[in-house]
Amino acid sequence: MPYVNIKITREGASKEEKAALIAGVTELLQKVLNKNPATTVVVIDEVDTDNWGIGGEQVTERRKRGS
Amino acid sequence: MPYVNIKITREGASKEEKAALIAGVTELLQKVLNKNPATTVVVIDEVDTDNWGIGGEQVTERRKRGS
Amino acid sequence: MPYVNIKITREGASKEEKAALIAGVTELLQKVLNKNPATTVVVIDEVDTDNWGIGGEQVTERRKRGS
Amino acid sequence: MPYVNIKITREGASKEEKAALIAGVTELLQKVLNKNPATTVVVIDEVDTDNWGIGGEQVTERRKRGS
Amino acid sequence: MPYVNIKITREGASKEEKAALIAGVTELLQKVLNKNPATTVVVIDEVDTDNWGIGGEQVTERRKRGS
Amino acid sequence: MPYVNIKITREGASKEEKAALIAGVTELLQKVLNKNPATTVVVIDEVDTDNWGIGGEQVTERRKRGS
Repeated sequence: MPYVNIKITREGASKEEKAALIAGVTELLQKVLNKNPATTVVVIDEVDTDNWGIGGEQVTERRKRGS
Repeated sequence: MPYVNIKITREGASKEEKAALIAGVTELLQKVLNKNPATTVVVIDEVDTDNWGIGGEQVTERRKRGS
Repeated sequence: MPYVNIKITREGASKEEKAALIAGVTELLQKVLNKNPATTVVVIDEVDTDNWGIGGEQVTERRKRGS
Repeated sequence: MPYVNIKITREGASKEEKAALIAGVTELLQKVLNKNPATTVVVIDEVDTDNWGIGGEQVTERRKRGS
Repeated sequence: MPYVNIKITREGASKEEKAALIAGVTELLQKVLNKNPATTVVVIDEVDTDNWGIGGEQVTERRKRGS
Repeated sequence: MPYVNIKITREGASKEEKAALIAGVTELLQKVLNKNPATTVVVIDEVDTDNWGIGGEQVTERRKRGS
């Protein structure tokens, strides 16, 4: 019954891509730890680039510089 | 001074229902552990059904099948 | 299928008290939002008082002063 | 490589204020624990005042009373 | 630069199994969303079975019944 | 009433260092967003290096290579 929270920047992930993340993580937990897929929960948070920082800087600014 | 995070799918919980969750959890922590309501914090996250998976599948798809 | 995370300071909550929190939160979500208890997940984190701050101060220090 | 999550009520924090939080937390972790800024991640969540409770009550209601 | 938090019950996951989860999730995010592995962070929390509830009940109790 | 969660690897942060993080983050939120220190909550999680991954690899392994 694992719980997985995936946080990514909000930059247009499609419904299908999110479905692939959910399926892939659930399968990984079954393969590695024999966890029951039926009770594996995955929650994806999409975060505005103004609200995500790395290296002390907003991702919005990094993207402008091409990083 | 507990901190409680409640994650639910975004499917139309009303302001009154959210108030009832906040009041109920705060009361529960006071009753069970004698925690001071004044410093009990509750945060509710509503998550799109595309972003919530269980059983390796998006809730959006489960809802379509009537689950 | 809600997910609830309860964070409390590590100050001797018993197994029975934790069971009461789990049962109480699950029931609250069923009562208020008609959520299915079978897929409601509750995770309790107990945090050392050195690692919890409020008012800019460790709980360890507040406890010494009787707060 | 610390990860910091800051949750605040959604009440109009500007892009510049969020940048200041990101820079400030990253600097603090470098100063106190010598953590490498390049791999320090900061995520800011802004939460609706209906979804944030303290003292068993929604912040929306507290704001109405001037708290 | 995704951040992934995996919560599992503390039931003896080995160092190698945890390494497989970290590698697998990082690879999945690269494959599905083209995320840079160098800045993908994965944190695994192992939670005591007394502190994890599902169906309104502690996992400790469920395990005793063979669930 | 912000809530801040700081996750760091468990590598010997002292009580004083943790106090400095708590005080520093609380002060930052007051300075930048005028948040009331009295209701600012900070929780520090220390995570085993086997349970923290970056670049698809456990921090334990990175430390062995001197990273």
